[in-house]
This record gives sequence, C-alpha cells and structure tokens, in this order.
Amino acid sequence: MSENSLETMFRPKSVAILGASSDENKIGGRPVRYLKHYAFDGPIYPINPNHPEIQGLPAYKSILDVEGPVDLALIALPSAAVLQAIRECAEKAVKAVVIFSSGFAETGDEGREVQLELRRIADDAGMRIVGPNCMGIAAFDHNMIITFGVSMLNLPPELGPVSIVSQSGAYGGVAYAEARHRHLGVRLWATTGNESDVSVADCLNYYVEDPETKVILMYFEASRDGAKLMAGLEAAKKARKPVVAMKVGSSDVGAEAALSHTDSLAGSDSVVDTVLEKYNAYRAYTMDEFFDIGYAFTSGLFPAGNRVGIVTISGGVGVLMSDYADKLGLDVARLPETAQAKIRQVIPFAGTRNPVDITGQAVNQHEILEHCLNIMIEEGGYDVVIVYFAGMTSMEFLLKTGLTRVREKHPTAAIILSVTMEEETWKFFDDLNFLIIPDPTRAVRAAAALMQMGRGYAKAEPPAPPALPAPVCVPTAMLNEVEAKLILAKAGVPVVDERLATAADEAGLSAAEIGFPVAMKLVSTDILHKSEIGGVLLNVTDEAAAREGYTTLIERAKAAQPDAEVDGIVVAPMISGGVETILGVKADPAFGPVVVFGLGGIFVELLGDVTQRLAPFGVEEAHEMMREVKGFPLLDGARGAEPADIDALAEALSRLSVFAHENAHRIESIDINPFLVLPKGNGAFAVDALIVPKKNCDGNWCVPNH
Amino acid sequence: MSENSLETMFRPKSVAILGASSDENKIGGRPVRYLKHYAFDGPIYPINPNHPEIQGLPAYKSILDVEGPVDLALIALPSAAVLQAIRECAEKAVKAVVIFSSGFAETGDEGREVQLELRRIADDAGMRIVGPNCMGIAAFDHNMIITFGVSMLNLPPELGPVSIVSQSGAYGGVAYAEARHRHLGVRLWATTGNESDVSVADCLNYYVEDPETKVILMYFEASRDGAKLMAGLEAAKKARKPVVAMKVGSSDVGAEAALSHTDSLAGSDSVVDTVLEKYNAYRAYTMDEFFDIGYAFTSGLFPAGNRVGIVTISGGVGVLMSDYADKLGLDVARLPETAQAKIRQVIPFAGTRNPVDITGQAVNQHEILEHCLNIMIEEGGYDVVIVYFAGMTSMEFLLKTGLTRVREKHPTAAIILSVTMEEETWKFFDDLNFLIIPDPTRAVRAAAALMQMGRGYAKAEPPAPPALPAPVCVPTAMLNEVEAKLILAKAGVPVVDERLATAADEAGLSAAEIGFPVAMKLVSTDILHKSEIGGVLLNVTDEAAAREGYTTLIERAKAAQPDAEVDGIVVAPMISGGVETILGVKADPAFGPVVVFGLGGIFVELLGDVTQRLAPFGVEEAHEMMREVKGFPLLDGARGAEPADIDALAEALSRLSVFAHENAHRIESIDINPFLVLPKGNGAFAVDALIVPKKNCDGNWCVPNH
Repeated sequence: MSENSLETMFRPKSVAILGASSDENKIGGRPVRYLKHYAFDGPIYPINPNHPEIQGLPAYKSILDVEGPVDLALIALPSAAVLQAIRECAEKAVKAVVIFSSGFAETGDEGREVQLELRRIADDAGMRIVGPNCMGIAAFDHNMIITFGVSMLNLPPELGPVSIVSQSGAYGGVAYAEARHRHLGVRLWATTGNESDVSVADCLNYYVEDPETKVILMYFEASRDGAKLMAGLEAAKKARKPVVAMKVGSSDVGAEAALSHTDSLAGSDSVVDTVLEKYNAYRAYTMDEFFDIGYAFTSGLFPAGNRVGIVTISGGVGVLMSDYADKLGLDVARLPETAQAKIRQVIPFAGTRNPVDITGQAVNQHEILEHCLNIMIEEGGYDVVIVYFAGMTSMEFLLKTGLTRVREKHPTAAIILSVTMEEETWKFFDDLNFLIIPDPTRAVRAAAALMQMGRGYAKAEPPAPPALPAPVCVPTAMLNEVEAKLILAKAGVPVVDERLATAADEAGLSAAEIGFPVAMKLVSTDILHKSEIGGVLLNVTDEAAAREGYTTLIERAKAAQPDAEVDGIVVAPMISGGVETILGVKADPAFGPVVVFGLGGIFVELLGDVTQRLAPFGVEEAHEMMREVKGFPLLDGARGAEPADIDALAEALSRLSVFAHENAHRIESIDINPFLVLPKGNGAFAVDALIVPKKNCDGNWCVPNH
Repeated sequence: MSENSLETMFRPKSVAILGASSDENKIGGRPVRYLKHYAFDGPIYPINPNHPEIQGLPAYKSILDVEGPVDLALIALPSAAVLQAIRECAEKAVKAVVIFSSGFAETGDEGREVQLELRRIADDAGMRIVGPNCMGIAAFDHNMIITFGVSMLNLPPELGPVSIVSQSGAYGGVAYAEARHRHLGVRLWATTGNESDVSVADCLNYYVEDPETKVILMYFEASRDGAKLMAGLEAAKKARKPVVAMKVGSSDVGAEAALSHTDSLAGSDSVVDTVLEKYNAYRAYTMDEFFDIGYAFTSGLFPAGNRVGIVTISGGVGVLMSDYADKLGLDVARLPETAQAKIRQVIPFAGTRNPVDITGQAVNQHEILEHCLNIMIEEGGYDVVIVYFAGMTSMEFLLKTGLTRVREKHPTAAIILSVTMEEETWKFFDDLNFLIIPDPTRAVRAAAALMQMGRGYAKAEPPAPPALPAPVCVPTAMLNEVEAKLILAKAGVPVVDERLATAADEAGLSAAEIGFPVAMKLVSTDILHKSEIGGVLLNVTDEAAAREGYTTLIERAKAAQPDAEVDGIVVAPMISGGVETILGVKADPAFGPVVVFGLGGIFVELLGDVTQRLAPFGVEEAHEMMREVKGFPLLDGARGAEPADIDALAEALSRLSVFAHENAHRIESIDINPFLVLPKGNGAFAVDALIVPKKNCDGNWCVPNH
C-alpha cells in the first residue's frame, strides 16, 4: 500500500458520515456541521437509517445506497456496529475510513481481535483506516474537517505552514487550539488513536511530501513501526522540514498510563532521544516548548552556529537572558571593541559588551535601536539576535519604522523580538519575518533551538559504516563465552588471546603457549556466577599449576552443580593496565539494535554514564560517541595517565554495530564487559562477552567478511 | 538605623518631588501624575525653581521653602544636582529619599565617591536612601506610587498578597506588569538600583514584617550584606511567607553584564543555591517560573508530601503530565484498587490508575468530575490534585456547581485547575482558592513547588552544631602543612599520626615510634610542588633508611630551591585502604564560610561531584550532606566494599564547620585533601591540609575547646 493513498484520505472528493446526527453538537452531528460550515467542496452523504434528512442534507439508509463514489467514510457508530459498517464501506469501494468509535484494542484482547478483523477487511479492499478511537483528521486547505472536537468551531482555522499529527485525540484537539492561540497557522491535522492502520509515522511521511507544509508537530506515545518513523524523519531532515516531537511515556508512570490509554507499548525512552537526535528532530518536553519551538521554526532561519546577541532596554532582564543562554550552551559572545565604541557614540552609558543595554533612552530616541541592531548584525557575527523591549507602548510607530529598515538591510538575519504586542502589531512584524516571543527566557530557548537545528542541517552526513562483502554465516548452537568471543572476533571486534581446554594436559599446553601467568575460568552456560563457586583462578604461574587448576575447576563445578554441562576451561593471559570499558548491544523493539558504550566500574554502575547510537555506524561516529561520556578524559590520558588506544576502541564499536545490524533479527543483547583498552598503539580487546540470542534465533550468525 | 524607618519610606505622610515636571510623561512629571491620579492621601510638594505651579499643584523653588514636614523626597534631577539636593533634604529633616538619577557608582570610581558622599550626608541626618539609579517604590495600600515607569498607569494596581523587590529597575517594572497580567495582586513594590543604602535585603526584612504581605518576589544581582539577607530569609521561613527568588549573574557572561549594570559583584552562584535552600526559599530561573510559582504560593497551601493526583479528560495530556511530574521527582502514586473500582462504576472505560482519565464523557455528565475528584482527595492520599480540562466551553456552569461542592467538602485540599478560562470564571474559582494554571506542565511544576515548600516548612530545625565553650586561641605565624593539621586537630578534625623532624636522627626515631613502613615529606611553605622535586619518599622501611631519607630530602630541597626555607621533614605512617575524600572551606564574601565535601579522585576532578553547606552545622546536617554526592555509595559499601566510617566523617565535617565559623574573619580557604575515611569503626583522618589565611589575618586561630 503506497503512502500516496493518504492523499485521498486527506483530500477526498466526497465524504460519507455513518451515524450522522441531526444534532449539531453530537459526535455524529459535528462533522456534518464542519463540512457544511467550512464549505467542503464535494458531496456530503449523511448515512442514517432513521432520518431522510440530516442538517438540511438528504440522508441515506446505508452507504450502499449512495449513488456516486465515496472517497472517505467517517464511522461515528457504537463499537458493536463498526464491523458491519466497515464491511459495507469495503463493498462500496471507499478509499479511506475514519473511525471515531472506541471500545477496541484499548479495552483488551476481545477488542484487539475485532480491531484486527477491521484491518483485514480494509486491507483486502485496499482501504486505509484512521483510528479506531481517534478524533478525526482535517485538511484545512481543502475545507475538509472531520472531527467531533469543538476547538475548530471556536477558533476558525487559519491556513499556515504547520501540520500536526497526534496519536492522542484529545491532545490533537488541544494542539490545534494552542497553535491557533499562538498565531500558528495549521494546514493538515490528524489524530491516529489506536493506529489499526494509519500511524503517526504514516502522517509524518505524508506531511514531508506535502509541498506547503514547512513545519511538523508530532505527538506520539509509542511507535510500533520504527523503520517507517525513521524514514519519515530522514525525509524531513533532507527536505529541511523541521519536526518538533513530543514523545510521552518516558516515565514508568507515564508509560503505564499510555498503555491504558491507547494500547501502546512505549519503547525505551533514551532510544527515542537517540533516534530524534540522529535525524535532527527537536524533542519538546512541555507544551510551551512544543509550540514556541514549532512557531520559531516557521521562520525557516536555521543559522548553523552558537552565538547569540542580546539587545535590551533592561540590564536586569539582559543578565537573566545571558544566564539562561549560558545554561543552554549558547555563546553570549562579546561584541568587538570597535563595534562597542560605535554604540557608545550614540548612548554613552550603554552596556555594550553583549547584552547591549540601550537603556530607557531608547524609548525617547527610537533610532538608537535601529543603530545598535545594525551594528550587532554587521559586526557581532551573531547567529541570532534577540531584542528585549518589554511592551512597546507609545513608541510602536517609531519601532515599526526602525525595524522595517533593519529588515530591508538584513533580509535573512534571524531576529527575535521579545516584546508584548497587540494582534495588529504582531501581524506587522510577523510579515517581516521577525519572530515574536514576549517571554525573554522562552525567546532564548527558541534561539537555541534554531541554532541546534541549523547545526544539525549543516553537519556533513557521516561516512557509511565499513562496507560488507557477502557475509559469512557461522552456525552455532548455544553460545558460551568462548564461542561468543569467536564470533565477535570474526566480526572484527578484537578479543583476548585465549584457549578453551577440555583436558588437564591441554590446559597446561595452552597456558605455556600463551605465556605465564595465566587466568583460568570454567566455561559453562549452566553456571551463572562462576566466581561464587570458585570457578576462576588467577595468576597461575606454571604448566603444572595449570594442569592442576584444570582438575580443581572441574571438581568445583561438579561439587557445586552436579548436573551442569561444562564446556571446558578457558585459559587466558593475565593482563594489567588499560582502561576497562563496556560495549553492549540491545535490541529495541521499534528501532532495532542500539550500541551502548560506557566506562567500566563506577562510571556505568554508579553514575549510569553511558551513551548509545543506532546501529550501524562508522568509526567517526564511534569517536563522537565515546566523547559523550563523562569519563572520557580517562581514555584521553587524564590525571597524567597514558592515553588509551581510542582508535582501536572506535574501530571495535563500529564493527560491533555492523555485526549487530546484520544480525538484528537474531540478537536480543550483547555484553562485552570488560572491553579492555590498552595504551595508545597497543590495541584493545574483549575480555569477557555474552551474546543473548532472540528466542526465535536460527543460530546462524552472520559476520561481515573483512 | 532600625528596619522600621522603612515604614515611613513606604508609607510617608507627605511627599516632595525635586525636579517635578509639568509634562506628565517626563521622568519628573510621572510621579506627580501617579500621586494625583491614585489620590495619595497627604500633601504633594512639587519642587521646581522655574514654575509656580506643576500639574495644578503649587510648586516650591526649594524643598527648604516647604512649610510643613516632608517624610519622603524624590530626586528626579540630573546627577550633577543630586548632591546639593540631598543636602537640602537633610536640612529639611526628610525621613527618606528616592533617587532616580543615574551616573553614580555604576559609572566608575568618581561616581562611586559621590555616591559614598550621598550616603554620608544621609547617615548623618538619619535619612534612608533608595537608589540612586533606581525606578522608585510603591505602597499600593497607601496610594503611594513613586516611579517613572508607565506600567502602573496602563495596568492600574489591584491590591493583593504579593510584595515585590527588584534590584534592577527595569525588571521591577516588568515584574509589576507581569504580575498584573497574571492576576497577581501587588501590595508593596521597590527597586533598589545601586543600593547606596536600602537594599533588596532591607526590603525583604520589611516585607516579612508587613502583616498583609503573604508572598515575596525578589530579584537580585548581588548581595553585599549576606547576613541581612539571611536574616530576612530566616524570618520569612519562620513566618511561612514564601519567597520566590530570582538571582541572576549565575553565568560568567551574566555576572559581567550585572557588573556593568548596577555595579554589583555577583557572588558564587552555588552558594546562593545553598543559602536559598537553607531558608526554604524557591529559586526561579525563568520569568514564567517566577510568576507561576509566586502565584501558586498565594494559595497558602503547602502540603508536606510528594504525591500528586492527576485527573484529565485527555489521556495523552495525562501521560505528558505524569512524565513531567516524574522528572520533577514527584510520586504519581497509584490510586487504591477500591477507589479505582468506584470510579469505574461511573465511567467504565476510564483510566483509573492515576492519572485518572475521565474521557470526553465528563463533558456530557458533569457530576463525573465531582465524583472522581472527591474519591481522589478522600482515598488517594494525594498532596496536590491537578485537574486538566483544556477549555471549559459550554459546561462552565455545571463545572462551577460541581467544583463548588468539592471545595465545600474539602476546604483545604490543594487543587490546581489546568483549564483555560475567561476573566469572570477565573475570579469565581480564585475566590474558592482553586489555583488556575492553564498550561498542564506548568501546573505540574507549581504542584512540585507547593510540596517542596511544604516539606521545607515541615522539616524539623536541625539540632544546633556542637556547643562551644570559651575558644582557645592558638597564635601562629605562617602555616605549614604540619601546623595546619595541628590546628585542625585541636578543632576536633582528626589528623594522621605524624611527626615533624628537624634532624636526621630525630627522623629515624620518629619513624620507629610510628612503625614501619613510613612516608616522608619535605615541609616548606616556599616549595609548592614537592613531588616534582622528589620531595616525597614512600615505603621507608627502617630507621637507617629514615635517617638517610631525611638527608636526601633536605639536599633535594637545597638543590632545587636554595633560598627556600625548610621547616623540616614530616614522617607519617604508610596507610592503605580507606576512601579518599576532600573536605574544604571557602569564604564567601557575602555569606561567610562554606564547607565543601566531595569524594577524591575522579569524583571531584572529573565530575565536579561536590556538595556544600553554610558553616556551622551539626552532625545530622553532615550526614545529609555526604548523601548528596553521587559517589556516596562508595562510602556506604557499594560493589561489595566494606562500609566506611561515615560517622567519623560526619563528626569531622561538623567540627570543621564550627572551626570555620569561629574563624570566619581569618580564613580565606581550607583544603583537606585527602581526608581518608577508614572502614567502619576505624575512624578517619586528614592526611594533608592547607589553611590559607585572609590577608588581614591576625594569626590567632580560635579552636573550639572540646
């Protein structure tokens, strides 16, 4: 089914309403009212067996009685009647249905079964479903509004560059209302509810293709189809259509509430961060942030820097803004001395460093602002300039003149006016592509968001991960530690030089080969905590001791767990020095394998100091990644220590990511702990490793042939 | 000078305006207009040598010509004329002056001198000064408004429980306007500018004493008189008058801007946190937070818990609120099963766990909300309940009825309505002491703030620090490491058992006394990096080696730095095991000595993982403190390690704080690094210590006699 079928869904030529009501305020009445009120350009077919006429339109007993074709059907019926209604829609060859009704998957197994049946009928008929349990959709450029919410009556639509999709129906309604309150013009709007078919990801993909959509606001609770979501985000990034995403269910509490709410399984929250970051989408955590940033993005100005200039008439607010900018990692860079001098020529007592405090004098001499703003833009090298002016009051006309001249001179400068103003004035400055965010700290946050996006857009695409020739598949049964390391070694992740011995003599010979002292350890997938039963021997110093060690370990295993299957004893060199790190892979149900990195010891255990990336990635990404953990200086030779071999570490991380990606359907998780990084030039290797296969794993591990 | 003199300043019986203007919109004209417009109840004396009448009032050539007494004089004159004006005010026995004029300490040394002179004249006359470089003061209950800002004309005052003080004039103006926009009634208002006399701290103290002030909003850039500020905060805490503080200049950038702005030296930002936390004041970082929280505090409801209940008509917004509550550390506790069942009886499909999602059905059956809210309050044990209802629309009347009944049943329940509503409706619910915060995440933050204050108010006063009998003063000259530790030991901070040797034989004998192996180190305040010149010997194993070591170290000192004065060689036991910590003291210029604690090694150096308290404090506080660092589990026996002697550590921290407090005027800083904490029962001690005296230190260290 092609994404294009959403075209007919959003822009149908005809609409039928099953369960249409004469009462304009009932759930089945409101959509009829909307379509009439906003003059939908096509036939509207109310379906109601009991009334020959609905809100002045001829009604039909069944959708099958409608003579012409029906592109879109809305089902506003009790849940028990929905299955029959869908069958009739399919028979009528409807292209898409929107189902308001609740009482499906969100109520339990029985409802889930009915919902699956709806989907099967629709799939067979090539029909798309929105919902059930949703609040409808709208294409305001098409006068097509199908919802039972009231906000679109109270706040008539105003076309604009923003398209909204929300998994939650009620949040979708709130989002529309908030957007309108905040001067954001909306173009397309959809709520996806239980997502029996059409998902947030589908709408995202469609919005990216819609030529007039410039900014996408997206609210979701879970994403079952991570690949589709990522495809949409990637397309949005390529098209430079910024996405502001709100993903809820990050707390356990929230996740549980989301589950009862629209039957979603919230994915691990940090993976969502990783995904959004990868595709340069902005994640918002509060309503204010969601809309402020969405609004800021409509400017289309995304400077790829970090420098903010601030002009105020209040030194105090300037300091407040500087503090906040600093907190957000912006550079409140000093204005060059020559530029400062030029400003002092006009206002001798001004603070000129940045923030530039043009003081109350600016109220009486309006050209001061124009003068300063021009100097800051021309000589400050700022990526965004914020003008804080509290209220405009009596000087409005003068400010308009001055700022119009600034805009003529600097048509693409990103300028935020942090000024309270009336609707009409707002319109004036909005037309000049000034952003207007009255609250000064929120203005700073918006500036930070513009630059964050700008840097993301400007960043070069990372080089592809190491190329893969035809993979070699290694059939294995159950994986013990030694086997896991063998596979990883084939995948290009260096491992410790070790031998598996299955007899005492062999252990002695292996130890001699490796060189003394050695460490010896039981290998058995049945015995979980080997050190607790004495299953590890350290500092074994000669061949006789190694042979004896073999026997001791086997005896200890038998004594502790007589029925355990023992694969042998692994013999490995004793190593001192190096930095212990942890490399891991976990399979995210929606987004696939994620590679995790952290330093060993307290860093992971006590501080949770880890970072992660979606697999696969190249060596450059791996380098970026390791620099994200707080403990990185220890690898970089902090406190006088020798710098570690971070190139070897980066190579291993990248190789691990490629292996995990190739085997995404087989791997539940991988733990390499510790992965020891030796001093620069000496390499790095896995000391211990665990690969947990997925339950349905075929046992054939594909390792890149390199 | 008693705080009470602010009474006449805020509530004068007569006001003179020096520099009064006939133009209502000029700086000297606007205050006259305000006093007339809002009917100040007392004589208004415009002073202007050139006009016999100002805005319909008879004007005087000089304040000395006024026949009656003048309580308050406003000076709105060019800076050059201020000195003479102050002299005349003094002669006239004015009680307080407000100086708008700028051009004093904020412009440099010359201006600072003039400002000091103003202060001297005022002090001699027993006259208070507000400003210079301020925007005035107001007591709205007294119709006394002295400012040149316009916001009090555009937004007429409405009396309420909030008093505002701002060091920044412009921010003060903004704060008044924002408060009024957000339905916050203001009582007293002051801007303090250069603070030649009256400071933010003075106003704070006065506001606490004002019976009708219930909430204090305070903005400051620096506090020179930390003691007075702390006294005000302490009084506010005792009176349960919550203080919302915005302290700017936390970033280097901000601090520099603040410096040029009102001539303040911003203190170390983390100490401000420590101070505000100690006195249960709330620190806000954004404008929204400043006013939202200030508004929430007007409810006077401060539940001392952590549990939030959420009722919504939108599951999606409920999840969003839960996530945010979780992020803020709140407990979105599950509603008891029996209570959930009661809710399901009324709305079978509701999400009942908490958030309780009463769905769109609540719009048609208004009694649902009342029912659910009562159950949540009665059976949920929530400290605050938030009701999210988006807009009220058509159901307003029904909601009013239902919520009125809820309030009658539960007069002191803290309930926040996150609902958009009209002015008149707002008034209705405000009168019922519901808090109204339309944005749902901001509502959650307000709930968190109410409970934060509640917990602070409920917390028992910490026991007094260890009592001090008459202190023993130890005269010392310059302090080397050994002397520093001797003083600390007297103060009750345990130190390593070490000996200072000044001859080779003595070194040998000392080493034998201590027991081998020992460590030996050069003692010299002239040689800074001892290990770099080989000035440390470890693992010295017998007496002969110790004697030889002495000679070696002395020779190395001579070779490296021939003119260095060497005090001797310190001999100490070699110790292994224990957890290295760092104990420190730094003198904050405003708030006095602050005790800092952290774990050694990467925790302090790499992670900046430290915590601090104002000195002095008791053992209980020390225990709380050490639990605030991320590395605490290492002291508590994490990762199978032995638990360390945290009781000994707490005792040492408390003793150090008492010593630092007693010697506040002598100590610049103390570094105890490392302070070694041995396994439980084995104590703890300072291995190395440095005491840096203040420049004017008398050299007599007073140590508590215990």
